[in-house]
Amino acid sequence: MEHHGYLGLTVGAPTALTGDGGATGTVVGPLPLSVEWLGDRVRLLDQRRLPGELVLVELGTVDEVCRAIAELTVRGAPAIGATGAFGVALAAVRGEDTHDAGRRLKATRPTAVNLAWAVDRALAAADPVAEAVAIAAEDVAANRAIGRHGLGLVPEGAKVLTHCNAGGLATVGYGTAVGVIRAAHEARRRPTVWVDETRPVLQGARLTAWELQALGIPATLVPDVMAASLMQSGDVDLVVVGADRIAANGDVANKIGTYGLAVLARFHGIPFYVAAPRSTFDPATPDGASIEIERRSPDEVTSLAGVRIAPEGMAAENRAFDVTPAALVTAYVSEDGISRP
Amino acid sequence: MEHHGYLGLTVGAPTALTGDGGATGTVVGPLPLSVEWLGDRVRLLDQRRLPGELVLVELGTVDEVCRAIAELTVRGAPAIGATGAFGVALAAVRGEDTHDAGRRLKATRPTAVNLAWAVDRALAAADPVAEAVAIAAEDVAANRAIGRHGLGLVPEGAKVLTHCNAGGLATVGYGTAVGVIRAAHEARRRPTVWVDETRPVLQGARLTAWELQALGIPATLVPDVMAASLMQSGDVDLVVVGADRIAANGDVANKIGTYGLAVLARFHGIPFYVAAPRSTFDPATPDGASIEIERRSPDEVTSLAGVRIAPEGMAAENRAFDVTPAALVTAYVSEDGISRP
Repeated sequence: MEHHGYLGLTVGAPTALTGDGGATGTVVGPLPLSVEWLGDRVRLLDQRRLPGELVLVELGTVDEVCRAIAELTVRGAPAIGATGAFGVALAAVRGEDTHDAGRRLKATRPTAVNLAWAVDRALAAADPVAEAVAIAAEDVAANRAIGRHGLGLVPEGAKVLTHCNAGGLATVGYGTAVGVIRAAHEARRRPTVWVDETRPVLQGARLTAWELQALGIPATLVPDVMAASLMQSGDVDLVVVGADRIAANGDVANKIGTYGLAVLARFHGIPFYVAAPRSTFDPATPDGASIEIERRSPDEVTSLAGVRIAPEGMAAENRAFDVTPAALVTAYVSEDGISRP
Repeated sequence: MEHHGYLGLTVGAPTALTGDGGATGTVVGPLPLSVEWLGDRVRLLDQRRLPGELVLVELGTVDEVCRAIAELTVRGAPAIGATGAFGVALAAVRGEDTHDAGRRLKATRPTAVNLAWAVDRALAAADPVAEAVAIAAEDVAANRAIGRHGLGLVPEGAKVLTHCNAGGLATVGYGTAVGVIRAAHEARRRPTVWVDETRPVLQGARLTAWELQALGIPATLVPDVMAASLMQSGDVDLVVVGADRIAANGDVANKIGTYGLAVLARFHGIPFYVAAPRSTFDPATPDGASIEIERRSPDEVTSLAGVRIAPEGMAAENRAFDVTPAALVTAYVSEDGISRP
């Protein structure tokens, strides 16, 4: 049983290893895929343990997949979509009730539409395994197309601010918002990136920082509260973020803090872009008010990396997402191209 | 040698104890004073160790006072002002060069004007000790007056958002922004408070949360990124913050994140108040652009409570303060009353 380290990072013991764990996994550029199908198991890159350790976990049951989604082993709307589809594939391979599996998978996280979309697509297919594999492959292709289209929005030497992680880790590979930055970097536009740390779960500090480092894209970590000051001092040329769900009217549900950034960008006259694959656009949701916003445990706010930061007994509110009205979005970037609200 | 715990909190071993440490310290309401003169030593409440431990440290030399200010043992513009004045008093009592002491004290932190103001006032006095004691006493009185004046801005049952800590800990006692909330609470207006955690140093999570708990004022901790969502959902009636320096034109330097809150409040039509004593208003500074903004170590961003949260080698930016233009301030509250920009 062997686990391979990428980028010189330590690979610790997997937390939920089943199967032999011998394969190295597919790599898109310098980064491993966030989710991959091994024939009878699903392999995830454990995002909770980054950036300290690069750990690949292998999941052999639908319950393990549900737990991995709920506990953020895998996160990011497109990545949990593909993981959900592989969960259905797992049920099919094991001869279990795929519709029961699909119901449980969809219940793990309510806000991202990609999860329900991918699970339903796998359920409706004659061969759920082939469909899940196709969903994952299409996601990487969509992200590369998003990068190509988004390139036109990134001027030479642009100072780009991004929030949370809409990178290769949030997708199957390559990334949406980070995909746009990555495409600009590959086209030698020399973008530099401000990475919002993204409290409470710190996806920016832990994941986006790690990805950009691995890709060799110059980046600087900032506390979320610094974005307004950076805009005020003329140090932000554009904001680009991902999305968990885009309603029919163009309202965008994304990581908590996105809405505030959109307001600040508007106030400072800075373009605000949302990069997401077609599967994130949900025609069945009329507007932002119809999107269920997940509330997570107050412990994510009162503690950090296992360290208590607030007094015992302190109440905390933990809305995981917010809704940005379409009116604050300069443009959407999908695999179909650029569209305006 | 005995140290007394307030509020049932543990009192650990002081980090820099000189003198006998036996006195209990003056208490304003249920909270000890943040800074107090012991005759030949300065006693500080060590704010770095809250909320886990309530530790009183006693400082016997000017160097110890300088270090305590630089390392945030004491923070908050009015509190470091009084501490600086006591540093001059210490030099006087020890027969040292008070002007040399004043120079070193003023160099510890550049943004808050109260430090230079209080040090200069102690230096100019015939009796620096009596002057420093007067400065501390006046600060508590000013804060109580700020509370009385601010009361008129807080409607019955108001949902108040505050940032950083402008409480009893940031002052000698009672608080400025928290003083307004406290006065409303004492007047049975039943305010409830959203406490911004205030990355990177978490003054909200550690200090304001602790103070409000001790005062029995209902409060809920939120990540800084949640403020916009709370405003959007109609859950914020007013914002009140403190200040480190208010320029002649009304521009306000305060904890990083304040400017973003002011923009968000304006966008949502929510009043944005700045509560600060007269000593924070600096007629010698024409506008915000003239205020030196302290940059602190990137380690405060890449680590949290000793835990590394970003990859090794990741660059980070750490502006400790930002500047809110006067145009975004609804009103200032000082001991002189309410004033508009």
